[in-house]
Amino acid sequence: MRISKLVGERLKDNVNGVNVKSHNFLLRAGYLKQVCNGIFSMLTPAQLVNLKIQKIIREEMNAVGGQEVLFPVVMPRELWEKSGRYSSIGAEMVRFKDRNDHDMLLGMTHEEAAVHLCQNTIKSYDQLPFMIYQIQTKFRDEARPRAGLIRVREFTMKDAYSFHYDKEELKQYYQKVYDSYNRIFKRIGMKNFIAVKSDTGMMGGDIAHEFMLLTDIGEDSIVLCQKCGYKANMEVATSIDEKPKFEDEKLEEVYTGNAKTIEEVCALLKIKPVQTIKAVCYAMVGDDKNTAVVFLRGDKEVNEAKLKRILGKDVAVKDLDETGLVKGNIGCLNLNIPNVITLFDNSLADMKGMVTGSNKEGYHTKGVNIARDLGKVDFYDICKVNEGDKCPICGAPLEIKRGIEIGNIFQLGTKYTKAMDMTITMPDGSNINPLMACYGIGVGRALASVAEEWCDEKGLVWPMSIAPWQIYFCPLRLDDSEVNKKAEEINNSLEKAFEVLYDDRIVSAGIKLTDSELMGIPIRVLISPRSLANDEAELTIRRTGEKIMVKLENLISSLKSIINKEMEALS
Amino acid sequence: MRISKLVGERLKDNVNGVNVKSHNFLLRAGYLKQVCNGIFSMLTPAQLVNLKIQKIIREEMNAVGGQEVLFPVVMPRELWEKSGRYSSIGAEMVRFKDRNDHDMLLGMTHEEAAVHLCQNTIKSYDQLPFMIYQIQTKFRDEARPRAGLIRVREFTMKDAYSFHYDKEELKQYYQKVYDSYNRIFKRIGMKNFIAVKSDTGMMGGDIAHEFMLLTDIGEDSIVLCQKCGYKANMEVATSIDEKPKFEDEKLEEVYTGNAKTIEEVCALLKIKPVQTIKAVCYAMVGDDKNTAVVFLRGDKEVNEAKLKRILGKDVAVKDLDETGLVKGNIGCLNLNIPNVITLFDNSLADMKGMVTGSNKEGYHTKGVNIARDLGKVDFYDICKVNEGDKCPICGAPLEIKRGIEIGNIFQLGTKYTKAMDMTITMPDGSNINPLMACYGIGVGRALASVAEEWCDEKGLVWPMSIAPWQIYFCPLRLDDSEVNKKAEEINNSLEKAFEVLYDDRIVSAGIKLTDSELMGIPIRVLISPRSLANDEAELTIRRTGEKIMVKLENLISSLKSIINKEMEALS
Repeated sequence: MRISKLVGERLKDNVNGVNVKSHNFLLRAGYLKQVCNGIFSMLTPAQLVNLKIQKIIREEMNAVGGQEVLFPVVMPRELWEKSGRYSSIGAEMVRFKDRNDHDMLLGMTHEEAAVHLCQNTIKSYDQLPFMIYQIQTKFRDEARPRAGLIRVREFTMKDAYSFHYDKEELKQYYQKVYDSYNRIFKRIGMKNFIAVKSDTGMMGGDIAHEFMLLTDIGEDSIVLCQKCGYKANMEVATSIDEKPKFEDEKLEEVYTGNAKTIEEVCALLKIKPVQTIKAVCYAMVGDDKNTAVVFLRGDKEVNEAKLKRILGKDVAVKDLDETGLVKGNIGCLNLNIPNVITLFDNSLADMKGMVTGSNKEGYHTKGVNIARDLGKVDFYDICKVNEGDKCPICGAPLEIKRGIEIGNIFQLGTKYTKAMDMTITMPDGSNINPLMACYGIGVGRALASVAEEWCDEKGLVWPMSIAPWQIYFCPLRLDDSEVNKKAEEINNSLEKAFEVLYDDRIVSAGIKLTDSELMGIPIRVLISPRSLANDEAELTIRRTGEKIMVKLENLISSLKSIINKEMEALS
Repeated sequence: MRISKLVGERLKDNVNGVNVKSHNFLLRAGYLKQVCNGIFSMLTPAQLVNLKIQKIIREEMNAVGGQEVLFPVVMPRELWEKSGRYSSIGAEMVRFKDRNDHDMLLGMTHEEAAVHLCQNTIKSYDQLPFMIYQIQTKFRDEARPRAGLIRVREFTMKDAYSFHYDKEELKQYYQKVYDSYNRIFKRIGMKNFIAVKSDTGMMGGDIAHEFMLLTDIGEDSIVLCQKCGYKANMEVATSIDEKPKFEDEKLEEVYTGNAKTIEEVCALLKIKPVQTIKAVCYAMVGDDKNTAVVFLRGDKEVNEAKLKRILGKDVAVKDLDETGLVKGNIGCLNLNIPNVITLFDNSLADMKGMVTGSNKEGYHTKGVNIARDLGKVDFYDICKVNEGDKCPICGAPLEIKRGIEIGNIFQLGTKYTKAMDMTITMPDGSNINPLMACYGIGVGRALASVAEEWCDEKGLVWPMSIAPWQIYFCPLRLDDSEVNKKAEEINNSLEKAFEVLYDDRIVSAGIKLTDSELMGIPIRVLISPRSLANDEAELTIRRTGEKIMVKLENLISSLKSIINKEMEALS
């Protein structure tokens, strides 16, 4: 490929308003062009990376027996009504009417389509396990697209669905795909990634894992124990709560005036947040009548993912007007207000000497003894893990890191096969709903994640396995006819052996060198009048900056050995 | 791949209500499953064919310098308003509102996106010509999906867009892609296809060609001259009109009572349709006020594609109530009715002694001399070519055949670059809008077209180049442990060298042989206790039915040579 014909330009300056490194470089180096919020066109360099990632994914999916299929993007309402998701999924799913006024949708995931494809054709337990997968465009109307390809509305995704006749067999197959995912991410060049337990969210099911690339730009919080290796997404992470002991006192109402927040109340009463009872109020989607009030210790925060699972409903911040709740003075004693559902976090169990709101303007109540004053209530795990909390497995202090979700795998159980009435016959003649698991990887997000992890101050740095081209051929002084002739010759022989981007422009050496670094091609082959005088070319490894002079007669063989070494560095 | 794990079943019987061979076999052989009208899931065998077709398309596009990109499926209204197509395209384009109430659409083609991608980054004439292409899902809300994958609502398409600085350079590049298309269709195994001149339709522009596979199930009519090679889609085909001469008479009104159609009037007056003037009335989209009345000779039919081009508007059959037009008696003389636009077809020019309606109930007028009675009117080419009409080039009689449009290429001119204000600088410093051309191939339709052309009474017959697997390995009597052991061994060695579908089922020979033929895999390798006794396998070529016995020790080499021969048969 000649760079003079390559569509897309290289920009000297950082892009205004873009504060994610990979996004900035992908825009600057001519990989992406934004069409509108969360929707991009991919230029050739990005599409070449895309195709290489897809090839690696295909190889690994096929290696665990995956069968590639293709589901439609547009599906009819009926298919999604069977699983109940037509109504349970909100605005992120696009719905429209076709020309015959029929309700249609853009598939954001394909569990329903997978069951539809297999049911009636898979009839017997001995056809299981199997996995079908596709690589297809998906559209999810994200509320907050961000960070370039990291969170978009339209993206290419590999989604896979496996079917199983019992839990043990599901578990074994799930582990195979888990291992396969580790190989995929390693092969495409990711370094600092881990798998963590995660929430099953809109997929349903019991057990799920997310593969996370650890990076400061990540949107997810991951809880890690360096000692025993415990790791989980914040949404499901737990910890051992060390409960401080306060003196048992009798209840006493105190005037706290305008002190409303935990901080203000603590300052006034000269106590720490850990001695207070925090109240957080939520509206529940699909329930306009009631308000959910979560009580938890003042040093904790509500984990909304956990709350959703407990309530079985989506939640949103509640406007307290007209609820009868006294903002800033809500308390867990004598809360005699209709249409309020109260929930208590584990952090409150057995606490004594605590401070809570008095449910009247300007007053708090001291000396709350949970067991004595509340009587029998249920406690739930509703709070987030704090940095330094004790590991639930080994008790060591937990760390919290940021991560990008680069893949996820779910054990779905029979949610979809039951809803859609797919059955298989077992050896004893009985009919059961098969178990399912599903497995996703976003191709564009993988591209951006690798770009984020590998880039340096000069630009992108592609791992050899997914680089758009292996070699950036960079002759200087193409206005010199001798160089020009030699360059064409060398380019011809390079192109026979490798993927080459040929910088055939007559521009300054500075522009050429800068562009080669910005675009992140793994090996630069430079010739100039001076190098040609010695029959040499200068090779530069983008990843390490290492420079090697090679005789032109050894050029091809040297490049082959460097490429092999760069590939080995990934395995 | 083991057939026991392959998702999808083979059906013994034809599928009810399906009357297109390829569609029937693709359903019966486990390639497709319908999700709803015009929307299908592709099972693994179909997806493997799909991927092979895509690979061939990529190779040929890259060979003419194509750069693969990826445009979004979902685009914002603004992009399509620039070209005017947001309003000019009808119900086949899906429009919806996103979560922020923004108007979005599903792209049915990507001229706007292509200009958006290139503008501002392509600035100078010396960056041209270039071509960008993508392989992407498209959704078109077809009114009448039919024939399985031949006409669907959702499909995978390769669409390409080239940019040019002048007409000559455009013409040269267009020819390169024209040749490339011929290679693609040949490589994927199409036999009886031709390129014909065609209508530019919603794309706009001047010159266009369609690649047509000639087959009776085609929806398009193609006009062909066997003598000089003239060929054109009916929508644009012309012919030399041989005008019969009738005696010049004076005008005479005759009572024709209930005779309304051309046939009834001819029977009553004892004349042939060629002596009558037919009137056909159309409503025009975007113009509720007027009616277009086309007058043409009674032996001709209106070519609506031509009419649309003349009017610059889409047309539909008109309900004559309240127009003042007298159904069955509309005539070209004294048609003094407001809000009527009249158009005259070339077939009427210079005709004498003709019969037309009298614009009053029950009467027709004889003796019409067009030149004498109408005065000066403009004549247009608005009629369809009839079988046997004379070739416009050489005068030989024309044939009409049916065809499936398997690809199309358009010279778009500056329609999109002008509308979107994309300019490039020429050597003399002037700025111009570059010229464009676009090029499409539907991948699924190509699959179905090849299936239609190659199948026989037993099922599908894939050409080697795009077969889902090269070899159907078919051991009989797998219940015999010796055969079973040997089969596993042979399968292992086959899989190392070829793409193999292994029929590992313990079912009757009849089922295995029938399935292998139905699925259309090019070579069947059969072993049985009897063949193993002679250390032999029986090879059957699906395309020819030829059977060859080979020694097991020569199996791999024999297969290699057969595969090479089958590939050569396509080039």
